[in-house]
Amino acid sequence: MRAEVVTFGEIMLRLCPEGYERIVQAQSFGATYAGSEASVAVDLCCLGVPARFVSKVPCNPVGQAAVNALRRYGVGTQGMVRGGERLGIYFAERGMGMRAGQVVYDRANSAMAQASPADFDWDSLLDGAAWLHFSGITPALGGQTPRICEDACRAAHARGIPVSIDVNFRRKLWEPQRAGEVLSRLLPGARLVFCGTQEMEELFGIACEEGAPSERAFAEGAARLCKKFGVGAVATTLREGSRAQENMLAGLLFDGAQCHVSREYDVCIVDRLGGGDAYAAGLICSLLKGETPARAVEFAAAAACLKHTCDGDFMQVTAQEVAALADGAGGGRVRR
Amino acid sequence: MRAEVVTFGEIMLRLCPEGYERIVQAQSFGATYAGSEASVAVDLCCLGVPARFVSKVPCNPVGQAAVNALRRYGVGTQGMVRGGERLGIYFAERGMGMRAGQVVYDRANSAMAQASPADFDWDSLLDGAAWLHFSGITPALGGQTPRICEDACRAAHARGIPVSIDVNFRRKLWEPQRAGEVLSRLLPGARLVFCGTQEMEELFGIACEEGAPSERAFAEGAARLCKKFGVGAVATTLREGSRAQENMLAGLLFDGAQCHVSREYDVCIVDRLGGGDAYAAGLICSLLKGETPARAVEFAAAAACLKHTCDGDFMQVTAQEVAALADGAGGGRVRR
Amino acid sequence: MRAEVVTFGEIMLRLCPEGYERIVQAQSFGATYAGSEASVAVDLCCLGVPARFVSKVPCNPVGQAAVNALRRYGVGTQGMVRGGERLGIYFAERGMGMRAGQVVYDRANSAMAQASPADFDWDSLLDGAAWLHFSGITPALGGQTPRICEDACRAAHARGIPVSIDVNFRRKLWEPQRAGEVLSRLLPGARLVFCGTQEMEELFGIACEEGAPSERAFAEGAARLCKKFGVGAVATTLREGSRAQENMLAGLLFDGAQCHVSREYDVCIVDRLGGGDAYAAGLICSLLKGETPARAVEFAAAAACLKHTCDGDFMQVTAQEVAALADGAGGGRVRR
Amino acid sequence: MRAEVVTFGEIMLRLCPEGYERIVQAQSFGATYAGSEASVAVDLCCLGVPARFVSKVPCNPVGQAAVNALRRYGVGTQGMVRGGERLGIYFAERGMGMRAGQVVYDRANSAMAQASPADFDWDSLLDGAAWLHFSGITPALGGQTPRICEDACRAAHARGIPVSIDVNFRRKLWEPQRAGEVLSRLLPGARLVFCGTQEMEELFGIACEEGAPSERAFAEGAARLCKKFGVGAVATTLREGSRAQENMLAGLLFDGAQCHVSREYDVCIVDRLGGGDAYAAGLICSLLKGETPARAVEFAAAAACLKHTCDGDFMQVTAQEVAALADGAGGGRVRR
Amino acid sequence: MRAEVVTFGEIMLRLCPEGYERIVQAQSFGATYAGSEASVAVDLCCLGVPARFVSKVPCNPVGQAAVNALRRYGVGTQGMVRGGERLGIYFAERGMGMRAGQVVYDRANSAMAQASPADFDWDSLLDGAAWLHFSGITPALGGQTPRICEDACRAAHARGIPVSIDVNFRRKLWEPQRAGEVLSRLLPGARLVFCGTQEMEELFGIACEEGAPSERAFAEGAARLCKKFGVGAVATTLREGSRAQENMLAGLLFDGAQCHVSREYDVCIVDRLGGGDAYAAGLICSLLKGETPARAVEFAAAAACLKHTCDGDFMQVTAQEVAALADGAGGGRVRR
Amino acid sequence: MRAEVVTFGEIMLRLCPEGYERIVQAQSFGATYAGSEASVAVDLCCLGVPARFVSKVPCNPVGQAAVNALRRYGVGTQGMVRGGERLGIYFAERGMGMRAGQVVYDRANSAMAQASPADFDWDSLLDGAAWLHFSGITPALGGQTPRICEDACRAAHARGIPVSIDVNFRRKLWEPQRAGEVLSRLLPGARLVFCGTQEMEELFGIACEEGAPSERAFAEGAARLCKKFGVGAVATTLREGSRAQENMLAGLLFDGAQCHVSREYDVCIVDRLGGGDAYAAGLICSLLKGETPARAVEFAAAAACLKHTCDGDFMQVTAQEVAALADGAGGGRVRR
Repeated sequence: MRAEVVTFGEIMLRLCPEGYERIVQAQSFGATYAGSEASVAVDLCCLGVPARFVSKVPCNPVGQAAVNALRRYGVGTQGMVRGGERLGIYFAERGMGMRAGQVVYDRANSAMAQASPADFDWDSLLDGAAWLHFSGITPALGGQTPRICEDACRAAHARGIPVSIDVNFRRKLWEPQRAGEVLSRLLPGARLVFCGTQEMEELFGIACEEGAPSERAFAEGAARLCKKFGVGAVATTLREGSRAQENMLAGLLFDGAQCHVSREYDVCIVDRLGGGDAYAAGLICSLLKGETPARAVEFAAAAACLKHTCDGDFMQVTAQEVAALADGAGGGRVRR
Repeated sequence: MRAEVVTFGEIMLRLCPEGYERIVQAQSFGATYAGSEASVAVDLCCLGVPARFVSKVPCNPVGQAAVNALRRYGVGTQGMVRGGERLGIYFAERGMGMRAGQVVYDRANSAMAQASPADFDWDSLLDGAAWLHFSGITPALGGQTPRICEDACRAAHARGIPVSIDVNFRRKLWEPQRAGEVLSRLLPGARLVFCGTQEMEELFGIACEEGAPSERAFAEGAARLCKKFGVGAVATTLREGSRAQENMLAGLLFDGAQCHVSREYDVCIVDRLGGGDAYAAGLICSLLKGETPARAVEFAAAAACLKHTCDGDFMQVTAQEVAALADGAGGGRVRR
Repeated sequence: MRAEVVTFGEIMLRLCPEGYERIVQAQSFGATYAGSEASVAVDLCCLGVPARFVSKVPCNPVGQAAVNALRRYGVGTQGMVRGGERLGIYFAERGMGMRAGQVVYDRANSAMAQASPADFDWDSLLDGAAWLHFSGITPALGGQTPRICEDACRAAHARGIPVSIDVNFRRKLWEPQRAGEVLSRLLPGARLVFCGTQEMEELFGIACEEGAPSERAFAEGAARLCKKFGVGAVATTLREGSRAQENMLAGLLFDGAQCHVSREYDVCIVDRLGGGDAYAAGLICSLLKGETPARAVEFAAAAACLKHTCDGDFMQVTAQEVAALADGAGGGRVRR
Repeated sequence: MRAEVVTFGEIMLRLCPEGYERIVQAQSFGATYAGSEASVAVDLCCLGVPARFVSKVPCNPVGQAAVNALRRYGVGTQGMVRGGERLGIYFAERGMGMRAGQVVYDRANSAMAQASPADFDWDSLLDGAAWLHFSGITPALGGQTPRICEDACRAAHARGIPVSIDVNFRRKLWEPQRAGEVLSRLLPGARLVFCGTQEMEELFGIACEEGAPSERAFAEGAARLCKKFGVGAVATTLREGSRAQENMLAGLLFDGAQCHVSREYDVCIVDRLGGGDAYAAGLICSLLKGETPARAVEFAAAAACLKHTCDGDFMQVTAQEVAALADGAGGGRVRR
Repeated sequence: MRAEVVTFGEIMLRLCPEGYERIVQAQSFGATYAGSEASVAVDLCCLGVPARFVSKVPCNPVGQAAVNALRRYGVGTQGMVRGGERLGIYFAERGMGMRAGQVVYDRANSAMAQASPADFDWDSLLDGAAWLHFSGITPALGGQTPRICEDACRAAHARGIPVSIDVNFRRKLWEPQRAGEVLSRLLPGARLVFCGTQEMEELFGIACEEGAPSERAFAEGAARLCKKFGVGAVATTLREGSRAQENMLAGLLFDGAQCHVSREYDVCIVDRLGGGDAYAAGLICSLLKGETPARAVEFAAAAACLKHTCDGDFMQVTAQEVAALADGAGGGRVRR
Repeated sequence: MRAEVVTFGEIMLRLCPEGYERIVQAQSFGATYAGSEASVAVDLCCLGVPARFVSKVPCNPVGQAAVNALRRYGVGTQGMVRGGERLGIYFAERGMGMRAGQVVYDRANSAMAQASPADFDWDSLLDGAAWLHFSGITPALGGQTPRICEDACRAAHARGIPVSIDVNFRRKLWEPQRAGEVLSRLLPGARLVFCGTQEMEELFGIACEEGAPSERAFAEGAARLCKKFGVGAVATTLREGSRAQENMLAGLLFDGAQCHVSREYDVCIVDRLGGGDAYAAGLICSLLKGETPARAVEFAAAAACLKHTCDGDFMQVTAQEVAALADGAGGGRVRR
């Protein structure tokens, strides 16, 4: 059995109005299935890294469609538990110019949010695993999900499987204080943590220098985060831009000793959702292959850049395409 | 102010795969907003009878879209309460031949299911009302909805406003025994009840003659129902057919004394949902205009027949078109 | 230059709601371009008979799109005059079951309705023509169109070009008496006239036997029509059916001496519009090839039958496919 | 009854090719219903200001669909007169880069263009009105529409209802001289007029300083316009840009004494139509709430900016979203 | 490792016009991926039987999309070889009434048609296999495909893995004589063969009684086929009907001793393609579970019936739904 | 007969995912028909220059649809030969930002690639021709296409018909050396050649000055190309830009004596394919009208700029629109 990355979290039905329509005016919705950790699993498969996804979905056609969406991209779904009442849903409308994109969540009482520790046998789920990844959204779902995350981390650490956690703080799901408490129990020993300077301060009280997020502020905060929680590395992205469809984006990776910064990418945005997940997948992919931190952050930023040009939460680009951009190609003459 | 029909219940987002696709294979969903009582209100407006709808929807774009869908057809929405967590959703796939259509509900914890009696000031809501209608789905939503229905009935009776109740038993929502108990508190004094022979037996212990549903069995059961609950009239439809896209349908109306039966209609089905609601709207419309029971049941059956030929839960036909079919027209040469 | 059939009339923008939606609920309209005589020209080209179309369309993108629609199927458009204010429009919704299809016209003041005799130089337009065809809709457009039709007939007769006229009476466009007057000036000398028994009676006072249209009544009326106007042959179709999507259809052709009747076809209807035009095109095609009247009516009825199975006003089937059905094939196993 | 803004004009069917297709190549058209004053009414409702619309539409499904489109957004339609032959239509294709968007009108002979003064009982129509708004397009429709506008203004002035007129000069509808004559009879006493410097000069002979439109030229011309017609305030927008999908836009408001200028907005354009109407609605909304001219022009410019990011002529944004942008937010991180 | 059914053949891109459009008029094509054996593999997965597919597809996005389509339904794709020039394509238009559906193949020179025996290591490909299935289409692809099929059969027989072959004769691909020669080398020892009476006669010279295909003729021919080739069982379907969208269908299974016949199903056809593959999958599924031949043929016919009601070549129904219909349910009331 | 431009090459089915979807994720493909020389013919017709297209397409609905696509725009198709196996296909996905558009060809073994010299009777095909145009793609198709191109050139030269050749080097179709050999036999005597500096060097060994392509390098190389092959004029475009949806573009034309350069256009790209063909059509159109080289290059660059703003390979703009942009208009206020 190939060593695989295991990701753990919620997968939801995503409903998108067509083009630039708003939710309130939509006559139909494009239907895809995604969620932060599901996206990371799919993106890893796109990049050629075997991955499987662990979650709980209801025994109905909507739950089955979520499983099918994962399988389509080659994600292993043997760890998907069936049961519970419903699949979570989110409505996502595209932004344009000064009008930001908008997400309306309808995810309460989902099968995953109501899962119990007994649903997941981590010994079996982590069998053959090379890496474990989840985001702060998973314990933010409430119920027993923090406890399940703790079980997962404990099992991974016991087997020597590296763990990465994307803090991914969502104010609509929980309060900073509660998030800080829960994540403080999960972070210790993580190989890699995705965390921005604002999250460092609000959740963990790690105040960085004032002003806009910067490389220096991140490096300083990341060092303190590593020390505080015994974390191996910390990563984030810096974004700038005033239009919904365009951004400048750079990747940052503090490797425990120094901070590596990618080139700055001119990001044209077809679909903003899943950009952070593509970054996470790119970093995990590169690190698993044993590439240098400098290369890893470049590769991850290129992956995030290309993901933004694709429709849907998933990456839809190949490792070759990401590597070519990371190597300096790009610019858009038709390849023929 | 014109006297208006007030209907009360839940409005949901309906998500339909395209054409004959199944839910599990859908890449997009057509989005409309409907629910039994909302459909009755819209259908009445289509038939030229002013109507308003009372419900509770969340303060978000999805809730607003539900309100807009009602307003589009002229339904009064001043009685819509805003609040709660979510709008209920149902997925509806079209049947074909031997494959029945399928509805997957995701309606738990909706704003309406969690509404409280204090949300609805029936004195004000029934101001200027000429009729009150709801279905058994409303108290089946659980929580305090049975209590709210009782409040509504009490207020209507106090003002001398006729009440109609469509039993509309849904096994996925509650048990027959519980339904029987709750509805037994609501039916007394109703001017008109929609109830089939199977419902009479399972919910209210009114056993009709054996065998397939028939006019005679219905008449017998309806008479006992009228007597048991002090109800003015009972109506239902008889359907036959073995293909999802075709049916024979006839309307039945027991007026407290005798049973009136419509012609039998050859129903071609584009969309089966909302057929019963169109029947209810047709009957209420005709009775409100003071037409005879014999005409009313003919008009209602014609309305149901035409509704089945239209896409969506709503009727989409005019009183003129219904009357023409009830008068014997129909057959489908292009009108030009 | 190949001898070509010339047809003359109005081409309009046709706007159709999707699927079985009604006009009032449509969020988008499929856009095609058609009209009785334009359809005959396209259908002839589909059947391998060269044809050109004479009309007037405005100098704007909508008028150009109408020309393009004709060219796409190989119709000659050198006789299209540019000018006038607008292209006529009609909205066409599909019927289903007891609900008939519906056409809403918005064709007043079109370029063609306001055309003048000076717009059409029939000497040049009929150069190389083998046949001239138009329908009663053309003079029904009002203004100077009756006069233009007379010019066309006179020029055709002078050159010995056979003329066919499809009476095609449309109550929304003119009164039976006015139609009778105008057409009585156009019919004399026509090689072929399409006219049903009801039109014979209402427009030309040719009363046929009572009761539903029948072969015998048609033969009797057609003989009288031939005699009255010096017409060579008369054709029509008989239809029966009570559902918008299904019909029985047979073709009838009185050849001046005897009445030929096609097999009866079980017609499944995707799009009813253009069925009569396909029948006309089939008949003209077969007669131009010198086939017998018996074969011609069989071929024409098969063409009409197949046209009903296609989307849009145009025929979309080949002469081979029509001939195969006329020869007795049909039934719908996939050809592979 | 709540005090409502009454707008008066024509509502049309708008037909748009998909995406960036041109009219000539379209296979389908998106169908919406709009017109300058109808858009202002809808936009006001979106902003939370009750509004109703006065117009005349035909008694057919197309006319009914126009009424439904207004009702969907909460616009009062009790003042809609039914009758006449047709609903006006316009085809609108999207521009891109150096290729400007294009509108093809097919609006002659519409129900509204052929309306008569007797169709509108302004005493009843203005009952409970807080404001009357129309644009120069309404009297440009010809026939008796100038007279009807005069009736409306007279009735409003008699009741002390403020009047706003958007000059909205359309060269395809009338000549500058005729427009100047007609509008000169309507402007006197208006509380607010929307008029650019080019319109001031061409229609009313108010020559402003040479060169590109500027704040100073506008202020000077507006002062003269106020004096000439006894108008309370004059507003316009300044636009710059060489690509169809991008503009810089600023709002200007001369309040009778001084000129207020909004921030300059970087406008990304999904749909340019209705931008001026959103500006008008924003200004009326803000002034009706008693906000300062400085705030009103900021709010109105923000409303126009956001409207451009939405599909269709209507605003589709809430007062909260407009206020947030006017307060300095904006930039397009997804809200989640 | 679970024992899995292995199917072997070609997977193609299927391009379908929308609705009832013909290929010649299509402006867009729905894109799915299918082929006889690929469909059997997917259908088995839908029925809960693990399956994998062996084929060769090109290293490009089109080939990858074919793999993804299989994975989506859970089909194992570890046996997919990458290489060759192109993926085969077929255009499929829907029939209606007297107009048969039509398939236009563009499959020459596909990766699979040009595969070599060295591409397939049957020892490894059949590891853990419980059954091997392919159709006559695979060796009909030409090149070395007959040889590869022989390799597969030999390897399966050596391991005692049951083999089923669906004769599936396609006149567009090869001549009856050549088909007979090639298949005569493949059939010996097969556990199950799908073969109709016409194929028996044309390919293998097994003349059955004259007249339309019948149960008796099939039983007689099947017995001779079993004897001639040492085959365990023979199956087919009988179809009747004259409209493209409706058929009567029954399944037949000769088990080596007697002939079992299913009920006759009234089949409503949304998509005819894949009906025979669903029948094959149903039979294999039932036989693998050890059900009786009588039950197996009933289950298989029900599977075929339900497949016809779904869009696309794949089955899209569950084993529960098939079993319910085989048990006598069906008729199409909405399940809610 | 009007003098017409004859273009010669392959027409293919183009399949495009919707919006910004990638080929691998597409559920449907927009279907259009195009190819370099087919596009030049269509574009010339859009510009008002009569044109016909010579090619070979299969006798099936796909081949017929290609012919229809040409006829729709008025291209003469009397020179289309029917026969061969298939129509070539290409899949084209849209680029965005750093992600370049991508074309996947499936054109091998097409009817045109397998055409023989006997298929084309150039005496008849060039009858009445005013110009002959083809691109290097035609001889790159292999088989006998180089020989056919030689036949065409010889026939054109014999009749004194000017020839233009667009080098259009495609690395996926042939090697630079082979391309150089074949084209060296075709170029001599051409009136106009489209060739960039990189092509000059790689194919013909004409090394220009180092560095990025520039006006000076082009002029130098073009002069040498003219001299080497006895060519009348050489044209190309210069492009710059790093985003798939935006470019700066200028046209260059060396007229044998001096180099003319157009203004630089800010090109916004809806569809990049066909941009070079629009440039070629613009240049041929202008030169045929006898305009100066300076005007011709301006007109051609404007045509290319506008083509990029339209969907599909074809130009979709009129000569008036191109001339207006060439004259300095442009910037995208809605024309109404």
